[in-house]
Amino acid sequence: MKTLAEARAIWERRTGALRTAEQRVRAAACFGRVTSRPIAAIRSVPHYHGAAMDGYAVRARDTFGASDTTPVRLTVGESAHPVDTGDPLPGGADAVIMIEHVQSVSNSQIEIRSAAFPWQHVRKVGEDIVAGELLMPRQHLLRPADAGSLLAAGILTVSVFARPKVFIQPTGSEIISAARGAEAKPGQIVEFNGAILSGMVEQCGGEPILREVLPDDYESLKEALGKGVASSADVILINAGSSAGSEDYTGAVIEELGEVLIHGVAMMPGKPVILGMVSGKPVVGIPGYAVSAVMAFEQFVRPLLYSLQGIRDEAFPTVSAILGTKLPSKLGLEEFARVILGRVDDRLVAMPIQRGAGIITSLTRADAILQIPQEQEGVDEGAEVEVRLLRPKDQLDYTLIMIGSHDNTIDLIADQLKGRDSRIHLSSSNVGSLGGLMALRRRQAHFAGSHLLDTQTGEYNYSFVERWLKGTPVRLVELAMRRQGLVIGRENPKGIKGLEDLVRPGVVFINRQAGSGTRVLFDYCLQQRGLSPDEINGYEQEEFTHMSVAVNVLSGRADAGMAIYAAAKALDLGFIPIGTERYDLVIAENAWSDFKMRMVLDIVASDSFHRMVTSMGGYDVSDSGRIMGVWDGEKWVEKTSLLELAGDR
Amino acid sequence: MKTLAEARAIWERRTGALRTAEQRVRAAACFGRVTSRPIAAIRSVPHYHGAAMDGYAVRARDTFGASDTTPVRLTVGESAHPVDTGDPLPGGADAVIMIEHVQSVSNSQIEIRSAAFPWQHVRKVGEDIVAGELLMPRQHLLRPADAGSLLAAGILTVSVFARPKVFIQPTGSEIISAARGAEAKPGQIVEFNGAILSGMVEQCGGEPILREVLPDDYESLKEALGKGVASSADVILINAGSSAGSEDYTGAVIEELGEVLIHGVAMMPGKPVILGMVSGKPVVGIPGYAVSAVMAFEQFVRPLLYSLQGIRDEAFPTVSAILGTKLPSKLGLEEFARVILGRVDDRLVAMPIQRGAGIITSLTRADAILQIPQEQEGVDEGAEVEVRLLRPKDQLDYTLIMIGSHDNTIDLIADQLKGRDSRIHLSSSNVGSLGGLMALRRRQAHFAGSHLLDTQTGEYNYSFVERWLKGTPVRLVELAMRRQGLVIGRENPKGIKGLEDLVRPGVVFINRQAGSGTRVLFDYCLQQRGLSPDEINGYEQEEFTHMSVAVNVLSGRADAGMAIYAAAKALDLGFIPIGTERYDLVIAENAWSDFKMRMVLDIVASDSFHRMVTSMGGYDVSDSGRIMGVWDGEKWVEKTSLLELAGDR
Repeated sequence: MKTLAEARAIWERRTGALRTAEQRVRAAACFGRVTSRPIAAIRSVPHYHGAAMDGYAVRARDTFGASDTTPVRLTVGESAHPVDTGDPLPGGADAVIMIEHVQSVSNSQIEIRSAAFPWQHVRKVGEDIVAGELLMPRQHLLRPADAGSLLAAGILTVSVFARPKVFIQPTGSEIISAARGAEAKPGQIVEFNGAILSGMVEQCGGEPILREVLPDDYESLKEALGKGVASSADVILINAGSSAGSEDYTGAVIEELGEVLIHGVAMMPGKPVILGMVSGKPVVGIPGYAVSAVMAFEQFVRPLLYSLQGIRDEAFPTVSAILGTKLPSKLGLEEFARVILGRVDDRLVAMPIQRGAGIITSLTRADAILQIPQEQEGVDEGAEVEVRLLRPKDQLDYTLIMIGSHDNTIDLIADQLKGRDSRIHLSSSNVGSLGGLMALRRRQAHFAGSHLLDTQTGEYNYSFVERWLKGTPVRLVELAMRRQGLVIGRENPKGIKGLEDLVRPGVVFINRQAGSGTRVLFDYCLQQRGLSPDEINGYEQEEFTHMSVAVNVLSGRADAGMAIYAAAKALDLGFIPIGTERYDLVIAENAWSDFKMRMVLDIVASDSFHRMVTSMGGYDVSDSGRIMGVWDGEKWVEKTSLLELAGDR
Repeated sequence: MKTLAEARAIWERRTGALRTAEQRVRAAACFGRVTSRPIAAIRSVPHYHGAAMDGYAVRARDTFGASDTTPVRLTVGESAHPVDTGDPLPGGADAVIMIEHVQSVSNSQIEIRSAAFPWQHVRKVGEDIVAGELLMPRQHLLRPADAGSLLAAGILTVSVFARPKVFIQPTGSEIISAARGAEAKPGQIVEFNGAILSGMVEQCGGEPILREVLPDDYESLKEALGKGVASSADVILINAGSSAGSEDYTGAVIEELGEVLIHGVAMMPGKPVILGMVSGKPVVGIPGYAVSAVMAFEQFVRPLLYSLQGIRDEAFPTVSAILGTKLPSKLGLEEFARVILGRVDDRLVAMPIQRGAGIITSLTRADAILQIPQEQEGVDEGAEVEVRLLRPKDQLDYTLIMIGSHDNTIDLIADQLKGRDSRIHLSSSNVGSLGGLMALRRRQAHFAGSHLLDTQTGEYNYSFVERWLKGTPVRLVELAMRRQGLVIGRENPKGIKGLEDLVRPGVVFINRQAGSGTRVLFDYCLQQRGLSPDEINGYEQEEFTHMSVAVNVLSGRADAGMAIYAAAKALDLGFIPIGTERYDLVIAENAWSDFKMRMVLDIVASDSFHRMVTSMGGYDVSDSGRIMGVWDGEKWVEKTSLLELAGDR
């Protein structure tokens, strides 16, 4: 296994001099292409001496001596010729006098009161481009304005490198086409890497040729690779079969038909990448997991596609940020960790998200990628890191970070925010209510979602804020009252009717993680009913969101789980109400006046939002948007008792 | 006339809510499009509980208590099921034991020595995506990885905003199509703005519809605008006719068919832009000069094309630089000055280039744009300015700045540099030899080109370095010896045979600017022959490059001019040799070891370069690449006298 740097160097050495074929394209449509030869101007621009102003073309020497006291008269059609901007200068004329500086004496005579200097207000031949001069060097990426100067200089077609064609061969006996996804049986996986790779090829100026999926079969893979190499493709990608498993034939097939340069690179995700050459064409075995595939593509295929066109790949834009939590990493592996990024209290904070190479949403949800060098055993909390941006840099100030408990209405808010301003991006991380308060304390989030029941007082959130947010001023705003209960299967074969049924033998429960508001509520309800956690089968199985609890029930993995009504409804499952709880947005005082936060509060208070939330079921929005408490870091400046409101509900 | 900020605000208010039609596209090909609605997952990912490792699927509780001293045996096919990564877990299993941690006891029995915890090495249903959750909000720009998560979650088509169609109508009676450019008569201009605008529309994700040129005629323009508005186009651009000239009908036509919102914006270039609405469609009168057209497009059409698709235009990348020379600017006009940018002595220096709105190469040659606010009367030399980059930021360290005398071989070097590393960009500015030395003194350039003859000693450059570069260490490297002489017309009707003929009546001369090496040489030659500048008709007419001198002769504007042989040869003109001079690269000591400078010197010393230069004619490359002097800022550490070499030449 090579280090990433070694592998890149070997790959560049072997492929750096390869170029796609030259072709000629119309100069008018050359945008985005790369010149394969230098281009010299055929014509000068302008190609004639022309007036740069509206007025009269004159011979400068005829005007010498003109002044207020000694005006000079010129005869129209002889010593002065009316011209508009762009008109050619009549023979002999070498200057233009602006119309504003001319007095008409008669139809045939004008008078001027100051001399013209030679070439004044004249666009001279070649002022812009001189025939014969170098317009564009070779290996120049053509931009829209370049097309203009080419055409102006008389160039109608240009030699460019062809767009690299990339033959993409998905493989895997377990892979079915996305169109047949609805019939996918357990163990079958929908093909979607091909779409990702195709898009990335296009991003690099290439043309993807996406093939149908092949089963894991040595001979058919060999045939496909042969076909790819014999085709007009410049590069062949095989996805996947690049690991060392029994049905991973990619390496062997490349070896048989050509040469394997590298099998395995010390990077994560992306380790099982294969780099090879067959008949002079680069062949890459792309790993199967989506994130691995993307990382391997970026490190090896992206630079190749640009160098095939004669240019270097542009460095990714980066930004400096503070790492929000410690991130351990394996020594000897270059790791690419996905993070969300947001400006909290003037610090740009990077928070790591899931690490699994198979988690495609770890890439789609990420704002940036933190590359941890192989020499480093992780990065400490609070360390300053340079991260590679996945979103436009100017959107950093438009990212809202929410960490805490999950609620389905948060998705709604995220969507509404985008609708109001497409730059605003809500990055949310589901770590439970208590985790959200901790994130606020560590200044890692703009706001949190919390529904922590104080079982002593029966009130929500207040005592937890008092305990955990000393020195951290926040405001509590009610998002909604929501119904919690048991999510059960559609058929409910075990006949579950309430919490008491959970202790019955044969009933399997799925729990929420400790520290989540739902867990606190569940434990409180058990206690009130005198039920012991020990009696519940599955009590120790934890999920992190309402939806994943519901999915456990849907998939038959559990018979019941505690979640909000909206989760049961979304998956069309049964629901047994247990209680109603208050879900608050806990907003850092520093973020309170931020325009994005104002927009969130504006949405939460809006009628349209209330209608949408109500239609999801299980929510009471009567007090949505109401300030429930103002905590100055030491005491409550304002506090609305839940009990005072109880009557309304 | 509105200020730029006012105009942008009015335009956004009137067009900000407009969107293109919704359409459905395949999720596999959604890259670069923008969602018009939120997208929720149809399927969970994974959609089954699967093995995350190769090994045995077990029920965790069956393994409890396993240890080195109390191993647990499991029966294959009953309590332990062999699984490969990705396989579904057989009924009841809730954990996977890695193959490495299993010992085979018999064909049917395995032994383990540590307990499995529930869900270890299992990819659970919904671990990545939970059915029903928000995958993408509305108004989200889809990236390649997004296509993957859409397909994985069961989404085959997505609703997106259509790419905006832009109807581009070039107008102007003087405009002819580029294909007919070779026949262009004086006063006729080739149409090329259409290609620039089309490329920019594509850059913004739109589809250009480029029309044939129309003459300046009210009725045909009206008909074309009517056609554009009635078509499927979302935006109509009319180029140009947007000024206040007698044949500028664009404003009037928009006014007749709809409404002119703004006519004229206090920006430069781009002032005569017109913003209007006809039948609910935005119509923009784009100014005629190429640079004005680009600036008007960027300020008004670019944001519109993005907002039509539901997203904001990304802010242009900027960088902070030091302005190399004072740049005056008109109060009350927002000016967009084009600059070249390079890192000289750790300072990023911005040097303004030509300002004419009609100079298309001021845009293609520029590295960045400096926007000078309308409240400011220019920017001082040395001021720190924020400039907008026109090249990738990582190429800043790859820009070499050469200021000084012009030589045709410099184009060759620029092209060769690109060929070796496409990131390397040679920005050259032709201000004459002395101007080049001044730029080195002010730390504005990496190197200069100089061929300044000391008429006292007959040697080149040395005494000028001594006089002007006190405190600025440089090295002199000979680029080539080159022949200077009189460029004359092909027919040479005036029968010019030498400098003496320049004083004949009727002979028109074109000169080079004071401070240029050629001018010094010319003046020296005149003096030696006892000729007076006063006697030469045209002596006061100055050009800045060899090529523009030659163009003056080619166009018949002058009968003769002093230039290098290569210039005459490039335009197939006559040439009368006058003398041979040494052209040196004067290289700042600080840049001497820079890898780009090394590459230049490497090229200059290469045989292939010598062959190419020799084939241009008029050059002697025997000593190309030779160090002619090392100046430490006070004295010559090393110096090769031209006279010593005279014998070789």
